[in-house]
Amino acid sequence: MAILFDQYFPCDALVQMGKDFHHRGWMAGTAGNLSARDVAQPDSFWVTASGNPKGQLESTDFLRIAIDGGKVLETPLEENKPSAESSIHQVIYQLFPEARCCLHVHTVDACIASERCAAPMLPLPALEMLKGMGMWLQSPEVTLALFDNWLEVPRIAAEIEQRFSQQAPDISALMIRQHGLTVWGESLQQAYNRLEIMEYIMSYMARRD
Amino acid sequence: MAILFDQYFPCDALVQMGKDFHHRGWMAGTAGNLSARDVAQPDSFWVTASGNPKGQLESTDFLRIAIDGGKVLETPLEENKPSAESSIHQVIYQLFPEARCCLHVHTVDACIASERCAAPMLPLPALEMLKGMGMWLQSPEVTLALFDNWLEVPRIAAEIEQRFSQQAPDISALMIRQHGLTVWGESLQQAYNRLEIMEYIMSYMARRD
Amino acid sequence: MAILFDQYFPCDALVQMGKDFHHRGWMAGTAGNLSARDVAQPDSFWVTASGNPKGQLESTDFLRIAIDGGKVLETPLEENKPSAESSIHQVIYQLFPEARCCLHVHTVDACIASERCAAPMLPLPALEMLKGMGMWLQSPEVTLALFDNWLEVPRIAAEIEQRFSQQAPDISALMIRQHGLTVWGESLQQAYNRLEIMEYIMSYMARRD
Amino acid sequence: MAILFDQYFPCDALVQMGKDFHHRGWMAGTAGNLSARDVAQPDSFWVTASGNPKGQLESTDFLRIAIDGGKVLETPLEENKPSAESSIHQVIYQLFPEARCCLHVHTVDACIASERCAAPMLPLPALEMLKGMGMWLQSPEVTLALFDNWLEVPRIAAEIEQRFSQQAPDISALMIRQHGLTVWGESLQQAYNRLEIMEYIMSYMARRD
Repeated sequence: MAILFDQYFPCDALVQMGKDFHHRGWMAGTAGNLSARDVAQPDSFWVTASGNPKGQLESTDFLRIAIDGGKVLETPLEENKPSAESSIHQVIYQLFPEARCCLHVHTVDACIASERCAAPMLPLPALEMLKGMGMWLQSPEVTLALFDNWLEVPRIAAEIEQRFSQQAPDISALMIRQHGLTVWGESLQQAYNRLEIMEYIMSYMARRD
Repeated sequence: MAILFDQYFPCDALVQMGKDFHHRGWMAGTAGNLSARDVAQPDSFWVTASGNPKGQLESTDFLRIAIDGGKVLETPLEENKPSAESSIHQVIYQLFPEARCCLHVHTVDACIASERCAAPMLPLPALEMLKGMGMWLQSPEVTLALFDNWLEVPRIAAEIEQRFSQQAPDISALMIRQHGLTVWGESLQQAYNRLEIMEYIMSYMARRD
Repeated sequence: MAILFDQYFPCDALVQMGKDFHHRGWMAGTAGNLSARDVAQPDSFWVTASGNPKGQLESTDFLRIAIDGGKVLETPLEENKPSAESSIHQVIYQLFPEARCCLHVHTVDACIASERCAAPMLPLPALEMLKGMGMWLQSPEVTLALFDNWLEVPRIAAEIEQRFSQQAPDISALMIRQHGLTVWGESLQQAYNRLEIMEYIMSYMARRD
Repeated sequence: MAILFDQYFPCDALVQMGKDFHHRGWMAGTAGNLSARDVAQPDSFWVTASGNPKGQLESTDFLRIAIDGGKVLETPLEENKPSAESSIHQVIYQLFPEARCCLHVHTVDACIASERCAAPMLPLPALEMLKGMGMWLQSPEVTLALFDNWLEVPRIAAEIEQRFSQQAPDISALMIRQHGLTVWGESLQQAYNRLEIMEYIMSYMARRD
């Protein structure tokens, strides 16, 4: 049976994803953060510590953070500091109790695909790939929620919380303009698969026009 | 002598191809399916089970399916379910008795290259690479058959069956709009080579215009 | 000291290059051919046998061919057949006695970069990279020789022989339209380096416009 | 803890970076040079010897050079010759005492992104990625210094010295037109991260327009 990311300890799976995404150019510099809900204590999640290059992570480069309030609950290394972007992961786990994994990356394609759209929702092309986002429809009309990029990341998190608590997004993904995609899933494997799908769609949009 | 994919047990060869194509971005999410005709029982074929990430396959993630009727004949794992897209593989093996392997992938380039063409046949540029599709001609005029994408995959399969039984395609490949390429060959290696060639041509078309 | 390709037995070095170039998408299908002059018998050269996938070569998948006349002199495997494109390699070794290695690949970028030029010579941009082709000049004005693609490969070879025997090319490279680049060098490593440089320049030209 | 490049002997770290950057196509042919300040003798730096393919380096393919004057102080191999471009590294270490590593690569994206700008400063888009260059601002207005490419590399170095000693650059990077990026950092890891970030930004600019 296919070896899924969920068969590993979450931080080990995220280390593998970090190498994979860095290799693809989706986590250049030290960009992005990867997180997974803790299985035993599902009111907390493990997230990459701030400032590490994501292609060179070890399984100790994570912190466990409380979904409610954001307190650091546990870390293998004292020097690990949470990234400001952890607040976005918190909001996702709060809003979507079924979310088990949340992946945030920075890609050129997603920045290009979204910059031409001034509206808060980016209409996506009716590609077959949308089935992988759960849209089993003929010619689906799906939008991706776009958010403005603020220096103060908690402001981005607050805007996500506000908009999504009023209206659920079409798909388990969002885009921060000139910044990057965030994708979540009900398993680590689903989050991984869906990030690939969203990047595929962003690449199509960036190159088609 | 070059180690060809046909020297392996078919499912092992398809596992290798899955890793290869996933790495290239041709099987993002869990997209696509790979199949090979069974050597001992050539009225059936092995095809990837539904829902697995194609870069993480094991040799057990396949089902053997009857070409006539589509019944599942054998599977190493009880939980394996055939993909709806298996019906397209069935039609290919029915129409082309010499086909031994059929590969279906989803690529950005092929979607872009084909979307500008409203006709049911996409004229291909006269690239030297067409020799690899069996077209040994000066300035060959070759077309790629385009099919509409339907939510009900058997409808796509039926349209392929209908059109190709009336008129054989120029080359052993077809494209489903906004979806992806399907390529077949008289051996696993030929199918692999020809998929590479079709992607090369699609990439040229997507980027040239 | 850097381990150069010339430190290996020529066919072993070409096997490595085949895997490398196939991985980059420069030898899709079974496209292209790689050759190296025999050190002990420099009036002959080893060249890839026809029809093999270039990413899966073994060191036995080569033939030794006489530069004058093209007779097959030696092969580890009886089934090895020379490619029609061997005639181009022959001409290069005839015209350039210092050439020790000749690499022919098919790339999308080179096809796109050259197709906009109707003239027989393609002017290259004055990139720093031209130093690697031996052009140590401020703002060098360098051209790449373009040849038409003929189904009969010996006709291409004859046109190369005719033009280059009248006027030597600016650089050790040529392009066959809608087909691919051929690059040669005074060592295996130089040919490898120069193929990389030409592809860099073709990629720049294909994408800039 | 993430294994950073600074945990290796500098030349070993630069060998790894050479393989990495070559694989990405940033050091085609024998292009580019990589250097790191010597820890014990910080008035000197180790830099790649001239003419080697950067994907095949060994830890002996370096020379130690005096920052003041450029004299070769030490080399594991007698045949190692400094590249003319070492003069640019010298100037960077002179101007920026905190610089510990300097990376110069040739990329298609950076050449395309900069060629449309006639001014000596290229305005960069306000991407989130600029945080990785130390710009923690809302909608930062950052420029990249552009320099003309001269056959005599010391002339480029002199122009860098002249301009930067009058006005410090916004970020630890510069671009030589039609040639390539130079990026430096206070550690090997920071230089590596920042080169990735600059390439990300150049790729965005080259493809957006």
